[in-house]
This record gives sequence, structure tokens and C-alpha cells, in this order.
Amino acid sequence: MSQGIIQLNAAVCAAGTVVGGMEHAGPLGHCFDYYNDKDRFGQDTWEKAESEMQRMAFATAMGKAGVAVSDVDLLFAGDLLNQCVGSSYGLLSYDVPYFGLYGACSTCAEGLLLASAMITGGHAEIAAAVTSSHNAAAERQFRTPVEYGGQRPPTGQWTVTGAGGFVLKAPPLANEQAMARVTAGMAGIVLDRGVNDANNMGAAMAPAVESTLTRYFSASHTTPADYDLIVTGDLGWEGGRILCDLMSAKALDISTQYNDCGRMIFSRNTQDTHSGGSGCGCAAVVLGGYLLPALAVGKIRRMLFMATGAMMSPDSIKQGESIPAVAHLLELRSPKC
Amino acid sequence: MSQGIIQLNAAVCAAGTVVGGMEHAGPLGHCFDYYNDKDRFGQDTWEKAESEMQRMAFATAMGKAGVAVSDVDLLFAGDLLNQCVGSSYGLLSYDVPYFGLYGACSTCAEGLLLASAMITGGHAEIAAAVTSSHNAAAERQFRTPVEYGGQRPPTGQWTVTGAGGFVLKAPPLANEQAMARVTAGMAGIVLDRGVNDANNMGAAMAPAVESTLTRYFSASHTTPADYDLIVTGDLGWEGGRILCDLMSAKALDISTQYNDCGRMIFSRNTQDTHSGGSGCGCAAVVLGGYLLPALAVGKIRRMLFMATGAMMSPDSIKQGESIPAVAHLLELRSPKC
Repeated sequence: MSQGIIQLNAAVCAAGTVVGGMEHAGPLGHCFDYYNDKDRFGQDTWEKAESEMQRMAFATAMGKAGVAVSDVDLLFAGDLLNQCVGSSYGLLSYDVPYFGLYGACSTCAEGLLLASAMITGGHAEIAAAVTSSHNAAAERQFRTPVEYGGQRPPTGQWTVTGAGGFVLKAPPLANEQAMARVTAGMAGIVLDRGVNDANNMGAAMAPAVESTLTRYFSASHTTPADYDLIVTGDLGWEGGRILCDLMSAKALDISTQYNDCGRMIFSRNTQDTHSGGSGCGCAAVVLGGYLLPALAVGKIRRMLFMATGAMMSPDSIKQGESIPAVAHLLELRSPKC
Repeated sequence: MSQGIIQLNAAVCAAGTVVGGMEHAGPLGHCFDYYNDKDRFGQDTWEKAESEMQRMAFATAMGKAGVAVSDVDLLFAGDLLNQCVGSSYGLLSYDVPYFGLYGACSTCAEGLLLASAMITGGHAEIAAAVTSSHNAAAERQFRTPVEYGGQRPPTGQWTVTGAGGFVLKAPPLANEQAMARVTAGMAGIVLDRGVNDANNMGAAMAPAVESTLTRYFSASHTTPADYDLIVTGDLGWEGGRILCDLMSAKALDISTQYNDCGRMIFSRNTQDTHSGGSGCGCAAVVLGGYLLPALAVGKIRRMLFMATGAMMSPDSIKQGESIPAVAHLLELRSPKC
């Protein structure tokens, strides 16, 4: 532990990604392992559909990694649903020691960070991280029933229907077995800068990313130019713009390297999602389906991945509270470099 | 990692406990640091009262440990409220890297286990774990408004209004600085044995404890007789009885060493809680206020602490699902032995 940097030595060896119809129709649609046009996945409720997506994502990741359920020492999982039932029911069929997480949309990075730390510390040889979100389940819980047809403002984001599962191992792995090396991480500090508009999550979360990113550059003695890509989970168009402005004000220009999973997953021209994608599943499927394969072949050599979570609840918003947010960071490197 | 045992080497150096009026009136009432007779803690909603309890518990633990906020490398926290807002708002005023957990009432053990693992692995020098529950906030969310006056069956439990905060350090510590050493842990597997009665959590959770405890005895080559105390978080009278039966059926008689925090915190004769206490705060305050001080002076030399969580949500119950449960285990030893 040096100024907040958690030194890690783990490898992501496989990812499984499952998405809904709209994500499949988007620019990264061809990258994902499974999709269901109706977002139902054979289930009779949206919540069960989300659980089924988690099950499929974890099973797919284990299959690709060539590991059996009994090989997995520890599993970290969480989602957006009340009491994280997407994870607890979705992964119930697997007898794997289970740590439940709640990091809102930061869960993907939180799970990968803790799984990597448990491997680095010798507490696990194989660990896994799974997370998900489902548009209809989230809309019903956080906003209004979909049928209500509430109009979303331009800063609103579209919760991704998607689940990502990741299997991590202790190094050394043969290069062809690793998609990426996890070399360091940093846990986010929960911040609240007074934004209380649940339709502008990007603005609420951008200061949390600024906090983690600024601390990381300082502690690691690196600059934006050291990375091929600096990517956030779901700040979207609005939050991403705010982040770049905040970083510029600190004389750290990230505009060349910066992108956001919420921007990448949907087409801004042909898919009307306003400010882009959001939800735990957004960062998870873009990382698992698009970014990790690019790291695996060396197209990306070194990147910072930050998933960002807005830690309010519908009740806390109704009680007049503003929105706290957190951003966890991982440094990922290509096994080719 | 040997057959699921996570070898740990950390020390709990301080605990802070905050409870409501009914807990203060119970047999352990004199053990807790702060209480508020009205359960309000100066706040205008129950949810904000729960957040305030977490803030107080964490502040008290840091004060006793003699550490400043800036000394705490990592903080693990969670609670029962939707999206864990008890923790995210309660600990917002502290600029400490934050991992959000959701383990229902297993959160106390989950947080302590992960904090200990991060210390053991060299990822943190000082880590903290905080959790809470609030009777009124939980009743309103999980069951019905308190004013409704719904009648609870004899198997029902009473959600504890309480928060516990713990500060852990890397050894070696002088004996007088450590309340207990954390020497090992085991993460629970999420199990569902078909119980779907939200008024009988003890029955839903007992099989999860049986699973973890049986695996731990086997992997550690120990028997119940090796421990002064084997304590669960909140199985209550009903669940504890079921657990002892389940263990007897496996030829492991724990009845001599066994107790449950949900049994200890309320008087069965004078406080009408039916099957005992429950909630994340139950295990946390009994551990922090009563068990750790007993370990500190050597009155308990070696104990197994298991906090148990029921991982359903009100929606999953309404959708006809049964109740999955998990139990995380910690082995704690007196610094005197």
C-alpha cells in the first residue's frame, strides 16, 4: 500500500458476456457471447432474467477459462437490485464461496479489484467476479414502470441489459491463457458534490472519478500519456465531458486517451439513449467483450479502467439527499507487452 | 488457501458500538458505547438515524484505536437498506477508500474477513469494517410500516437497532493494543433449502451455517471441543436449535459451546422479541461490545464467529422465490493466549 495504490499480480483469463436486444443492435453487438432480443432469457420476471444472465455469464467465463465450478476458490458478485438478488439467486446453483458486493455501477471494478487482491495475497488461486444490470428491472425499481412512459431529459442514461463474468488466476500463465494482467488498483472514496438529479448520474459520478484518477496519477508517478486508454464505466456523454473539464482544471489532459463504456455500447446516431449507457452491466460487458480481447492481442497495451457507482437509493432521493458516488480503478496491461 | 480456509494474520484493535433503546435495556445494555432511547439519533428519518449510527460507531472505533481518518487505508461497509444507503451516506464524511458490501446480516463477518485478508496480503496496514441495522428502517422496508401492527409469529425475529465499527491493524501489536487476533476465515456458500417464510429467517439460515461450519471443522482438523465459544450472528432461538440438530446429525455436537448473538442481546423473559434479535447490527454490536472485550482479557481464548445472512428481497419473496442464505466464518483468538 503506497499512497492508496494496491499492488496487484493477477491475470484475467476469461470473460463471459450476455446482453439484451438493444445492446446486441449497438456498435459492439458482435463482441458479446450471448444475447436475447426480448431481454427475457426465458424467465417470467425481469429480475429472474437478470439472474439468468449472471448465471450464463459466469458459466461462459468458466467454460472459456477451462475451469470447473469446484476450481473456483472465491466469487465476488453484486448488482443494482434491492438486496442484490440478481447475484444471490443467479449464482445460487454454483457451490462457490461467495462475497456479496454493493458498489452500484462500480461493482465490476470493485469485484475485479478484490478478486485480484485475494489472488495476489495468496488467499485464492482462482477467483471470479460477476455483475449485471437489466434495463427493465432497474427502470421499475429506480424510476417508474416502463409503461408509464416518463420522458427522460438529455442528461438521462439508458441502463444496459447485460451481465459480465470474469475468471482470474494467479500468474504465471502462458501468454495465450491470459487476456490481461491486473497490475494495480485503487479503491474509490465516496464523494457527494451536491448533485441530486437522478437523471444526471454522469454529473454526480464525475467528481468521484476525478478523485480516484488524480490520486492514482500522483501515487503512480504516471501521466495520461502513459496509457493507451483511460476508460470509465458509465459517465456517458454528459459525465465524460464534465470529467475531462475537471481533469483539465488540474492540468491533466485526458481527452486524447479518454473514452467511456456508456458511450461505446450504443450508437449515438441511431439509438436514442440520450447521454449513453449506464448500469453495472455496461462496464462489465464492454470490458469483457471488447476491451479485454483488445488487451489480449496487444491492440491496447496499458489502460486504466474505472467503474463508477452512484450510491443513492430511490428513498434517499425522495428524502431530499444528494447523490454520493464512488469510482474504483484498475490498471490492466496486455500480456503481449 | 487450503480446502477453503483463508489464513489470516490481523488484529482487531478497537470496536465502537451504538444501539437503540431496546438493546440498551437488554442484558448486554451496559456493554455498548452509545445508545439513544428513541432510536432517532437526532435525525428526522429512520434511514438517516441508521447512517448516523454508522458514523458514530466508526468514529468511536477510530478514537479507541487512536487512529486518524487519514490512517485508515481501506473501509468495508454495508447494511440492509436498499442500495446500502446506511453505509454510503453514514460514512460519506470520511475520506477513506470504500468497498461497499452486501451480505445481509452476514456483513459483519464478511467485512472483517475481507479487511483481515487485505491486511494479511499486505494491501493495507489499517483497515476498518462497519455495519448496521435499524429496526424501524428494516420493518418499513422488509415487512410493513410499524404502525400497521402486523402480528409476528413465534419464529419471527426482532431487527436490532445497532451499529458496530471495527479497526484492524497488521500485527505485531502490543498485547494491550489488540482485542483479538484474526487467525483464519472461511467464506460462505450461498444455499437455498426451500424455506420461503420471511418470518422464519433462522430456519432459512441454519443450513448455510451448517455448511460453513462443517467445511471449517474438516479443513482445520478441529472439533467443537477446540473452541470456548461457537457463536452465530442471528439464528435466534429457532434457527439455533435447528443448527444444533443439523450438526448433531453430522456427529458434531456443538451444544456445549454454541450461542447466538440474537439470543444474547435481548432478554427472553422480559423483552418480547419472540425468536430473538436479527439484523446486521446484531452480530456487530454483540461482537464489538461483549465478545471482543472477553477475548481481550482472555475470558474467551478461541472462538468461531459466524454472521449469517438471508439474501432475499421483499420482491423476490413476492415473486414466490425461497430464501437463499450465506454464513461467513472467522476464527478469533485472545491476544493473551
